[in-house]
Amino acid sequence: MLTIGVDIGGTKVAAGVVDHDGQILDKVKYPTPADDPGGLAAVVARAVGELRERRSGKGEDVRAVGVGVAGFVDEDRATVQVAVNLGLRNEPLRERLEGLVGLPVVIENDANAAAWAEARFGAGRGSDHLVCITLGTGIGGGLVMDGRLHRGRFGVAAEVGHYRVVPHGRRCPCGNQGCWEQYASGRALVAEGRERARTDPRGAERMLKLAEGDAEGISGHVITQAALEGDAAALDCFRTVGEWAGAGMADLAAILDPECFVVGGGVSDAGAVLLEPIRDSFARHVPGRPNRRPAEIRLAELGGEAGIAGAGDLARH
Amino acid sequence: MLTIGVDIGGTKVAAGVVDHDGQILDKVKYPTPADDPGGLAAVVARAVGELRERRSGKGEDVRAVGVGVAGFVDEDRATVQVAVNLGLRNEPLRERLEGLVGLPVVIENDANAAAWAEARFGAGRGSDHLVCITLGTGIGGGLVMDGRLHRGRFGVAAEVGHYRVVPHGRRCPCGNQGCWEQYASGRALVAEGRERARTDPRGAERMLKLAEGDAEGISGHVITQAALEGDAAALDCFRTVGEWAGAGMADLAAILDPECFVVGGGVSDAGAVLLEPIRDSFARHVPGRPNRRPAEIRLAELGGEAGIAGAGDLARH
Amino acid sequence: MLTIGVDIGGTKVAAGVVDHDGQILDKVKYPTPADDPGGLAAVVARAVGELRERRSGKGEDVRAVGVGVAGFVDEDRATVQVAVNLGLRNEPLRERLEGLVGLPVVIENDANAAAWAEARFGAGRGSDHLVCITLGTGIGGGLVMDGRLHRGRFGVAAEVGHYRVVPHGRRCPCGNQGCWEQYASGRALVAEGRERARTDPRGAERMLKLAEGDAEGISGHVITQAALEGDAAALDCFRTVGEWAGAGMADLAAILDPECFVVGGGVSDAGAVLLEPIRDSFARHVPGRPNRRPAEIRLAELGGEAGIAGAGDLARH
Amino acid sequence: MLTIGVDIGGTKVAAGVVDHDGQILDKVKYPTPADDPGGLAAVVARAVGELRERRSGKGEDVRAVGVGVAGFVDEDRATVQVAVNLGLRNEPLRERLEGLVGLPVVIENDANAAAWAEARFGAGRGSDHLVCITLGTGIGGGLVMDGRLHRGRFGVAAEVGHYRVVPHGRRCPCGNQGCWEQYASGRALVAEGRERARTDPRGAERMLKLAEGDAEGISGHVITQAALEGDAAALDCFRTVGEWAGAGMADLAAILDPECFVVGGGVSDAGAVLLEPIRDSFARHVPGRPNRRPAEIRLAELGGEAGIAGAGDLARH
Repeated sequence: MLTIGVDIGGTKVAAGVVDHDGQILDKVKYPTPADDPGGLAAVVARAVGELRERRSGKGEDVRAVGVGVAGFVDEDRATVQVAVNLGLRNEPLRERLEGLVGLPVVIENDANAAAWAEARFGAGRGSDHLVCITLGTGIGGGLVMDGRLHRGRFGVAAEVGHYRVVPHGRRCPCGNQGCWEQYASGRALVAEGRERARTDPRGAERMLKLAEGDAEGISGHVITQAALEGDAAALDCFRTVGEWAGAGMADLAAILDPECFVVGGGVSDAGAVLLEPIRDSFARHVPGRPNRRPAEIRLAELGGEAGIAGAGDLARH
Repeated sequence: MLTIGVDIGGTKVAAGVVDHDGQILDKVKYPTPADDPGGLAAVVARAVGELRERRSGKGEDVRAVGVGVAGFVDEDRATVQVAVNLGLRNEPLRERLEGLVGLPVVIENDANAAAWAEARFGAGRGSDHLVCITLGTGIGGGLVMDGRLHRGRFGVAAEVGHYRVVPHGRRCPCGNQGCWEQYASGRALVAEGRERARTDPRGAERMLKLAEGDAEGISGHVITQAALEGDAAALDCFRTVGEWAGAGMADLAAILDPECFVVGGGVSDAGAVLLEPIRDSFARHVPGRPNRRPAEIRLAELGGEAGIAGAGDLARH
Repeated sequence: MLTIGVDIGGTKVAAGVVDHDGQILDKVKYPTPADDPGGLAAVVARAVGELRERRSGKGEDVRAVGVGVAGFVDEDRATVQVAVNLGLRNEPLRERLEGLVGLPVVIENDANAAAWAEARFGAGRGSDHLVCITLGTGIGGGLVMDGRLHRGRFGVAAEVGHYRVVPHGRRCPCGNQGCWEQYASGRALVAEGRERARTDPRGAERMLKLAEGDAEGISGHVITQAALEGDAAALDCFRTVGEWAGAGMADLAAILDPECFVVGGGVSDAGAVLLEPIRDSFARHVPGRPNRRPAEIRLAELGGEAGIAGAGDLARH
Repeated sequence: MLTIGVDIGGTKVAAGVVDHDGQILDKVKYPTPADDPGGLAAVVARAVGELRERRSGKGEDVRAVGVGVAGFVDEDRATVQVAVNLGLRNEPLRERLEGLVGLPVVIENDANAAAWAEARFGAGRGSDHLVCITLGTGIGGGLVMDGRLHRGRFGVAAEVGHYRVVPHGRRCPCGNQGCWEQYASGRALVAEGRERARTDPRGAERMLKLAEGDAEGISGHVITQAALEGDAAALDCFRTVGEWAGAGMADLAAILDPECFVVGGGVSDAGAVLLEPIRDSFARHVPGRPNRRPAEIRLAELGGEAGIAGAGDLARH
């Protein structure tokens, strides 16, 4: 049985045909229409139609559609309560799409969809208790517990980027202070790199050079490249961010006791350079040591396609 | 069908016959033997035997035994990995007890058992997504998600008292710093009261009088009594602790998105005096506001018998 | 004996004739030339020349010039090491000005000059141990100890806005994190007001109305006006900032043990609305209570002219 | 001209004859009488008498007595306002002693006396702007500014151990939370060592061995010895404490801008093992970098006799 998974991002809508092993058999992309809920549904419907047509040419049928969205989705997996970047608010996306495509549709938070994919087909394969952490500009999360995606009572569980790690800490656009994503995300990594360039330009020489001399030009890619070359200042930036990431995972372990953490998102492109300080910090912070079997910490395996694969698979169940 | 629930505490072993509505039909208590695993199992067996005999006099049968223990219990609900106060370490308590009583036995963490009871028969009745917080000397927790007790991969989920709320914060006997229970527990409440008495004796006059003039004599009972009388300093102690409790619940809501929180433990004897600052703090800290349906916060209903009722009910399933 | 005091700000150069009682007898203002050290000295010289000429018409003589600058001034009171807003770096301002005006010149940090004026002629009159705190966009400071301005070994003492009050706290443009001025300045006050408007628009109704409905339009003036009207949310903003201000002064009291604090700057326009939470917080945080005679906390008296009066008076000594 | 310096500690009273170079020519010691102000004065008088008699045998005269006390001393250097460990409260020690010994007496806080000695005769020789930090069980401080001991308005300046470095931080016996001495003192060092032993016994193997297997037996001496042997866990304890010490000195530099810091007390016996992380942390935290001439950080030179030498010298001026 085939399904279609759709990942609605801020700039593009990516859709793919997903088989029961999470393989993506075919894929299309369209630009995301800005601030236009009707236009957005139309684009999703067009992508779904195109993929179905191609499959039907091979005599294959698509049975359902799963859609991942960066925003709050209600407990019925039907309504997008708020998706700031897409301009959606109380949008009955499932109803609208089912009307357009004539297939059962489920809506899901995008980080939840990606987590589900990693749990089923990626780094978390075989584990029923898993926490997926996506270190992008912010921090996204997904929880799989007892083999099921944990969506919470109102559909908005796993907003781990906004639990508080520092009272009176850095201000977050969400309105709170000290949110985890102000310390362990890609944005935090970049802020570290730029501060070093401003207050210790000699130590940050390599990063500055890659950024053509401009501290403000230091990006996640610059820091990652310098770190992979072995640059001490860039490695230190990853150490700082990894320290916070690992300490936060220790908190999540205290609360959830998962078997493993899967770490994805752009920051995780640095691989071991990120993972080692995370593991080190986790080991020092997890409560109950040394009497506790600690969770494993692994890199995500599915990359940017996790959202499609997960949304498609969730539509199947 | 009847079961027996047992609550093994640091000073006493309490056992009761539990019916399918969570009612405790009969109860016995024995002192807890110190640092003597074999003796402990014998006491539990004796309590179970006594209760069964009385039931059998009425022609009633007991089918299973559930035991709640303050400690880490493994994922098979069989072995107590470590229970510091009871001197247990890798104790195969289920096997030992089944040998003695000839009934199926399950072992459970005591805060989990209490949470289960509140979810099934108490303040959380009817809710499938619930977080139970026990504010005693420390903080215990229990999670019910999608209608099931969440035990984690290794049986030690819901150790919420030890997630970190303040980096470099107060030292905790667990070896970490800044654990939630150093800020929102009964111990924290008492520390607040004593500090006020030392640094502002006039403001703390009423608490000091109830403690016969000695700052070190200020207990949770003293602060509760003064607060219920309307004493400003005592109310302030509850406000401080409630602020931390509510902020921590906001973190848990970000991660778990429950429908309700149930607050129990000795500190909750103060009722509204505690609950109001908790609700106020929760409302100010929960992320996603004002776009989010927030969880309700309720007082526990079952008091000290929640452990017996929950352990008994868990043995049934 | 008369002197001239000059206050070089980011937008204007203000100069005045100062008598030995700190009275400003005459005053002129010019716009500050941007990023032009030579032009800046020429403007100061012109202002001094104009004021001298008018005095000389009355048969009065000016003996010296004192100049206050927002920046690091060296220990010889001669060179501006760095003044970001004025584009100065290692600028030998004293030498340049003495060449132009033919009088002895001293250069001083502007917050130091203002503190000196308050100590000699303003709210700190009569006190030999005084800490002056200027709550503007950031936080400036000036220390008078044993009756003398404390400049430090290298001329840069009293940078109190940048001591750290929160580890891992809010990022500061200075490159550090958790600086006091991120919590107790006008910028912090405005950030409080805007956050409230975003996360609790109903509670912040009055401030929003004064800002014509736009959270980003909430300024220090808006919050001050609403607070003086008694608006609860605005008062709360002052309470939050006052709490941090008072806690920081308690730290300074632990280190310096002054007789009084003088609080000035734009935030202090709110008067008692600011002063009360500061005093309350100070009393709760100052160490050594209840065995200590605590410092008084007073509002500054000289307003915007403190810089001129102080610079002029420092030139006399 | 000779004076006598007296250092009143919790267990012994040490007195010495001090010449104008800070040399201690002769010395006596007595046990400190507990909770007996009159007895304490008598012991000091006896020690002074004994030393004078020996000098007078050589035809030398003693002109004044300086006394250092661990406690709050008033601004007239006459009254001990409170000295918890000695059981003194509002004790007119100068008057009492002058009556007994017939010489001019000055009373001083012991950390101030030690700081003065280091500034005049020790590691701070030649510097007029100096901050002395004594890392013992707690943290003591002394400030020399413009060549004079800074005592503050009420005599209690330089209580640097109790400025707040962590909001909601570790509780301090002073009644506050997050005091610097909870993070950078000998007590903090020992707490680090013990925590490591409890939560990572293998890593802390060497320290545990030196403590005969008992985590509670880990003392400052044990950690220092292990660190000097190169043990990684012990070096880490010093790194943690040195990080806090250096960050605190960066705060003091922002406020006071001294030429140098002198670091003494028992923790400083570790020498470079402590000094390197302090210097590293200071360099990363001091505000105004890279535009600022930073203070030097040196080890104290006078050891335990600094108190006698300083008290004696202060009596001379």
